[in-house]
Amino acid sequence: MSKKIGIFTGGGDCGGLNAAIEAVVKSASKEGWEVYGIRRGWEGLILNIMHPLHISDVDGIHSKTGTILQTSRTNPYKFTGELNGQNLTEANVSGKVIETAKRTGLEAIIVCGGNDTLSVIPRLTADYGTDITFTGIPKTMDGDLQTYSLGLDTAVERAKRVLEDFIPLLKANGSIGIVEFFGRDVGRVTFKAGIAAGADVILIPEIPVDLDYICNFIAEKYDKRAERNRGVSYVLVAVAEGTEHPLTQKKVFQNKGEDSFGNRRLGGVSNVLAKLIESKIKSDPRITRHTGKLDIKLQTPTYDVRGGETSYSDSYIGQKLGLAAVLYLKNGAQSGMAVVDFNEHGKIELMPIQKLIEPRPVHIRVLELFERSGLYCFGRKPGEQGYKPTAIMCNSQ
Amino acid sequence: MSKKIGIFTGGGDCGGLNAAIEAVVKSASKEGWEVYGIRRGWEGLILNIMHPLHISDVDGIHSKTGTILQTSRTNPYKFTGELNGQNLTEANVSGKVIETAKRTGLEAIIVCGGNDTLSVIPRLTADYGTDITFTGIPKTMDGDLQTYSLGLDTAVERAKRVLEDFIPLLKANGSIGIVEFFGRDVGRVTFKAGIAAGADVILIPEIPVDLDYICNFIAEKYDKRAERNRGVSYVLVAVAEGTEHPLTQKKVFQNKGEDSFGNRRLGGVSNVLAKLIESKIKSDPRITRHTGKLDIKLQTPTYDVRGGETSYSDSYIGQKLGLAAVLYLKNGAQSGMAVVDFNEHGKIELMPIQKLIEPRPVHIRVLELFERSGLYCFGRKPGEQGYKPTAIMCNSQ
Amino acid sequence: MSKKIGIFTGGGDCGGLNAAIEAVVKSASKEGWEVYGIRRGWEGLILNIMHPLHISDVDGIHSKTGTILQTSRTNPYKFTGELNGQNLTEANVSGKVIETAKRTGLEAIIVCGGNDTLSVIPRLTADYGTDITFTGIPKTMDGDLQTYSLGLDTAVERAKRVLEDFIPLLKANGSIGIVEFFGRDVGRVTFKAGIAAGADVILIPEIPVDLDYICNFIAEKYDKRAERNRGVSYVLVAVAEGTEHPLTQKKVFQNKGEDSFGNRRLGGVSNVLAKLIESKIKSDPRITRHTGKLDIKLQTPTYDVRGGETSYSDSYIGQKLGLAAVLYLKNGAQSGMAVVDFNEHGKIELMPIQKLIEPRPVHIRVLELFERSGLYCFGRKPGEQGYKPTAIMCNSQ
Amino acid sequence: MSKKIGIFTGGGDCGGLNAAIEAVVKSASKEGWEVYGIRRGWEGLILNIMHPLHISDVDGIHSKTGTILQTSRTNPYKFTGELNGQNLTEANVSGKVIETAKRTGLEAIIVCGGNDTLSVIPRLTADYGTDITFTGIPKTMDGDLQTYSLGLDTAVERAKRVLEDFIPLLKANGSIGIVEFFGRDVGRVTFKAGIAAGADVILIPEIPVDLDYICNFIAEKYDKRAERNRGVSYVLVAVAEGTEHPLTQKKVFQNKGEDSFGNRRLGGVSNVLAKLIESKIKSDPRITRHTGKLDIKLQTPTYDVRGGETSYSDSYIGQKLGLAAVLYLKNGAQSGMAVVDFNEHGKIELMPIQKLIEPRPVHIRVLELFERSGLYCFGRKPGEQGYKPTAIMCNSQ
Repeated sequence: MSKKIGIFTGGGDCGGLNAAIEAVVKSASKEGWEVYGIRRGWEGLILNIMHPLHISDVDGIHSKTGTILQTSRTNPYKFTGELNGQNLTEANVSGKVIETAKRTGLEAIIVCGGNDTLSVIPRLTADYGTDITFTGIPKTMDGDLQTYSLGLDTAVERAKRVLEDFIPLLKANGSIGIVEFFGRDVGRVTFKAGIAAGADVILIPEIPVDLDYICNFIAEKYDKRAERNRGVSYVLVAVAEGTEHPLTQKKVFQNKGEDSFGNRRLGGVSNVLAKLIESKIKSDPRITRHTGKLDIKLQTPTYDVRGGETSYSDSYIGQKLGLAAVLYLKNGAQSGMAVVDFNEHGKIELMPIQKLIEPRPVHIRVLELFERSGLYCFGRKPGEQGYKPTAIMCNSQ
Repeated sequence: MSKKIGIFTGGGDCGGLNAAIEAVVKSASKEGWEVYGIRRGWEGLILNIMHPLHISDVDGIHSKTGTILQTSRTNPYKFTGELNGQNLTEANVSGKVIETAKRTGLEAIIVCGGNDTLSVIPRLTADYGTDITFTGIPKTMDGDLQTYSLGLDTAVERAKRVLEDFIPLLKANGSIGIVEFFGRDVGRVTFKAGIAAGADVILIPEIPVDLDYICNFIAEKYDKRAERNRGVSYVLVAVAEGTEHPLTQKKVFQNKGEDSFGNRRLGGVSNVLAKLIESKIKSDPRITRHTGKLDIKLQTPTYDVRGGETSYSDSYIGQKLGLAAVLYLKNGAQSGMAVVDFNEHGKIELMPIQKLIEPRPVHIRVLELFERSGLYCFGRKPGEQGYKPTAIMCNSQ
Repeated sequence: MSKKIGIFTGGGDCGGLNAAIEAVVKSASKEGWEVYGIRRGWEGLILNIMHPLHISDVDGIHSKTGTILQTSRTNPYKFTGELNGQNLTEANVSGKVIETAKRTGLEAIIVCGGNDTLSVIPRLTADYGTDITFTGIPKTMDGDLQTYSLGLDTAVERAKRVLEDFIPLLKANGSIGIVEFFGRDVGRVTFKAGIAAGADVILIPEIPVDLDYICNFIAEKYDKRAERNRGVSYVLVAVAEGTEHPLTQKKVFQNKGEDSFGNRRLGGVSNVLAKLIESKIKSDPRITRHTGKLDIKLQTPTYDVRGGETSYSDSYIGQKLGLAAVLYLKNGAQSGMAVVDFNEHGKIELMPIQKLIEPRPVHIRVLELFERSGLYCFGRKPGEQGYKPTAIMCNSQ
Repeated sequence: MSKKIGIFTGGGDCGGLNAAIEAVVKSASKEGWEVYGIRRGWEGLILNIMHPLHISDVDGIHSKTGTILQTSRTNPYKFTGELNGQNLTEANVSGKVIETAKRTGLEAIIVCGGNDTLSVIPRLTADYGTDITFTGIPKTMDGDLQTYSLGLDTAVERAKRVLEDFIPLLKANGSIGIVEFFGRDVGRVTFKAGIAAGADVILIPEIPVDLDYICNFIAEKYDKRAERNRGVSYVLVAVAEGTEHPLTQKKVFQNKGEDSFGNRRLGGVSNVLAKLIESKIKSDPRITRHTGKLDIKLQTPTYDVRGGETSYSDSYIGQKLGLAAVLYLKNGAQSGMAVVDFNEHGKIELMPIQKLIEPRPVHIRVLELFERSGLYCFGRKPGEQGYKPTAIMCNSQ
């Protein structure tokens, strides 16, 4: 039984996408299926840009970053651009997606995407039925979906290195460093990278910032570290771009428009913080007695956190999800599901896309473990110390 | 209530040990406890080599590889060396361990170790009771314990890079490359790194090698790749040192003695394979028509796979387990348990050390997913193709 | 004959500083000398912040980035800060430098610095004579001194990686990428990293930008690359911050003050270029026929280019210069000289600091080699093609 | 004027080869020339394996390791293999090289190689005249030619990392580590990497090993380091494979045959050293009082030192030499010359291949700088301390 399927990648590119593409093409080819590479996310289906993919197109691409199929943030329900000679603005061209798929004879389409890209699927299914099977593979550098998603591991590794590589420079200049990472509503990358690299203060969208508390924490930390190291000190702050302004309690946006999913471009909270912190502690003797003048250094690594080498984990999981998706399609799939794992008992684990894309904030209980220990400051005063977590038996994993 | 606790690391050093040490020292200091750094694994307790650890000893060490406490493979039930002026051979000096701990006033000892190091704990408990609370933190680069253990992630990342960096050289020389990694009974590192890097053939202790099958697979792969790339081809084989000799079905050992846990030194299976493969396919036209002469290149990276940068994951988990262990001790711990996770519900997850150290082979169901797709050869003929895995709903993670 | 010497590092920290410090301390200790670590550049001499350095302070620091002595951009002829309880602004406190050195008994001071830091030495010598021997070790990430200087190699390597890691992302989005690097008057880092990474357009302060020419080059390159790769294309531009605005022919500054050496903070030329390029080619069919909408992505990596691992070359040369400086001092040194090499004939190579700090632009003849080949665009139309360079015999190196 | 030229790479692959190939193909294409990629070194000319190279074959390959043209150690004066259906052994097939080149119409051939590969050129010229212009581009990871050669920088960087990554593991185990690198007659890689990484003992073919001296040095170093660090110590030894056996004063070979240039396979000197050192110092109290039992760990990284990322320098120089070679050919070249640089005055620097391939040992005067300082041991007692090098003025570079 021969099949024709399509695959595309939408949203930001990240580690593991090419691994999934390679696995899908190779295993589908083995089944005797034809695989179409749809280009530039949903745009490829709107504009009918696709071509057959062969093993020679994908052999060895699994650990390369980016996506050979290219990507875009196109929303078929709000398309802006040229279509059939017409210039459209925020037009609903969802019908075009189905039309292209049907005309090409695609029975199923594997969609690698995050919440924006995947959110289109339930809507398409509601509007046009399930003749074409849409199967999701979760990817998001933000780690904000309900399950592990491709790209998080690679991004955290990269973010960690930016933080670690900053520390010697901060020490050399006696500075306070602030690094702003992406993370709209969920600060998972900042949280994990911050801990792994030993950032002293970690600020995320999930937790409102208590300005007085963090300023005091910073001055105290600077002072103690200086005392232990003949005056050489620094404090490192990692902040997610979606963290709220400590005074207005609102997110900080750049003066740019929004994308076709209605997201405004965040950015600038590190500048806000730098100014607020500076005004609070520039004359604090816990700092000034060790350094002539308080120096704050900012960094906002952007594309560089997305680049580099794909982690083994994203390469491995990308291939696993790609293979599991083909197997799921082979054995009869239901449209609107995402393939989220293939477990040790040999079962394909699924999740309805609707549920998958519900936001998953940083686990506050885990954060509290790090917070109460006094190792890290998360922008607020830690809770009472009488805290007594239960211990439970674990099953083997 | 002030406590005195000890911590040590045993077995091979790996990523995440220093992270655990830093977290233990910092959080225990916050509780007002005194922490003793016991040196060189169990040897430190036998020979009484230890010293108090302060925050200044550990600040910022979390992402450094190695272990500031040093390590050893010493078995207190089979100690060879000098003790109190006497030269002992395979002597039971377990009493000395308890004696040192008691004399120093240690109420609890956190042991970071793998199966050999941790296996001493149940025996000590049986022999001397539970006056001193021994709490385990799992670590093993091999990934052969029942739960995730520190070091695996870092090691797989490193092993993956060795494989990936080998490929351009193999292509440049038209060679077949064989890389031998550690892995006595469990081939998890070779399996995961092999897949992540796209090794064509992955051989692990869990699966006996069918020599004819792999030789045919190699020749076929070489031929097809050459055809796609104007004659440029290669085949990459990753093999765990504990993989059985294809003819004798026995592990391949070096001519060296065994360690104090009775482990003989493995090594050499890649040489065995190279000779067997060469004799089978050196005249195979699928290879010779593309290259003058079959060239096989071997590599056995050893210490270099253990070194390098600690992955974010091992740094993060190392700190998490260190904090959880201190919290567990604070709230009343039972000797003989290992702290294996701190979950999103705020619970410390425990496992009896006895159970934790049971070997955990590579999950064969997962391996089969990769095997049936035709992407990888695991040393045997894949099973029948009618395979139809169940799909199940996943809970959010 | 015992000596007391000092060492400090000024200006931006970079790769190789710690290597020089380690070599100076170890070899001077061997001579029986006492070495004082002066902290934070010239500030350490003004404020008398220094301490003796021992082998245990420096063993193994050679490949760590940063500088264990800390650094600053302090100019003793324009000091702003508190001194003896007085708040000074742009005050000449040069006498304080000499006073501190004499009071401590320092016979000689080794200064690791770039043009700003080193420029103080000839002035001090003119004003206060040569009782104290100031010996320079050249360092500058910009590579703008007359000889190789510590830090360039490490910085170019790092800049190259930023560029290379950007390419997959640009391909995935069909974008034009612009990366802005430091480089006030000399574009050596951008030039070398740009070529090593294969940036298509490389813009440096040495060459005025011909806007029409580069826009045409970009559109042409985008088109040809798209044609070769099924529509997948990108163009990568590397620009030094000191490159002139194509319309005003002036450097682009941030709205920030200047440092104590009178340098205003550059930054923003990539934004200027992005807008100008976009307005010129956003409707160019050579681009639009391959992609829906021209997308330009900007990156300004800052501190991250300074961080990371010291290259072997900076570690090696740093040690060599440190050893040569001590040897020079041992055998009778003249104040105001820099130690710039130790050659294969066993001679210490010196250069008067006055001469060393004359700017050294990118070698235009070498740039032309890359330009005429058509591989790279340097912002201007290449010269006539009849170019015929002489070939000469080389002596062995 | 259209030309047809060929290019090939011989000997071991290394960083910078693909950069040279890309530059040659792109700039020659711009001249309107046709470029043939000759495969597998001299073998490609013997067996007539070549194909035209286009820009699309080489765009972006400059920083990839390996060589897209493949390579071999074939010697046309001692060819073993099948030719025209005949099995030859060490046959002179040099005429075939010229015949193939003439039949294809190649006017000039650019040869990227080290001393073995390049040594064929003068012989060919002597035997067959200069109708075909052979132009060399020097490459050798060993750094043993008379000028800088492609691959050295990349290899030293890689070797340095192996050494640096070993140190935490040695500390964790209190071990002496010995790392054996390639380097037949010239120890440049071991020398430079050893210094850059801070190896304590560096042994190279240029200097006979004084066993007593190094054993004493090791014990002393171990002892002092242990005293400074609460007993934590290690000693790191880097040794080139061509270093002589300390007792026999002969190189140590593996039991393998020789290649077609008559080179026997070296290897094993680290094992020899380990045994000799162990027997001398295993009971030395300077070691045993810090550690239970002397532990020596060996590593022989092989292919892994050749792999990885091409350094910016090799990518940059590879392109420069490729461009210069084309320019040299364009303006009238003499056969038998190598293009070794393009200098800041716009001149192509040449060297007769005959002269280029004369061995260039490590500069002993530079080595002595490191030796007399006491920082490093090079296997012998340093000379007298009255040493007083001349200081000379340097010209700007």
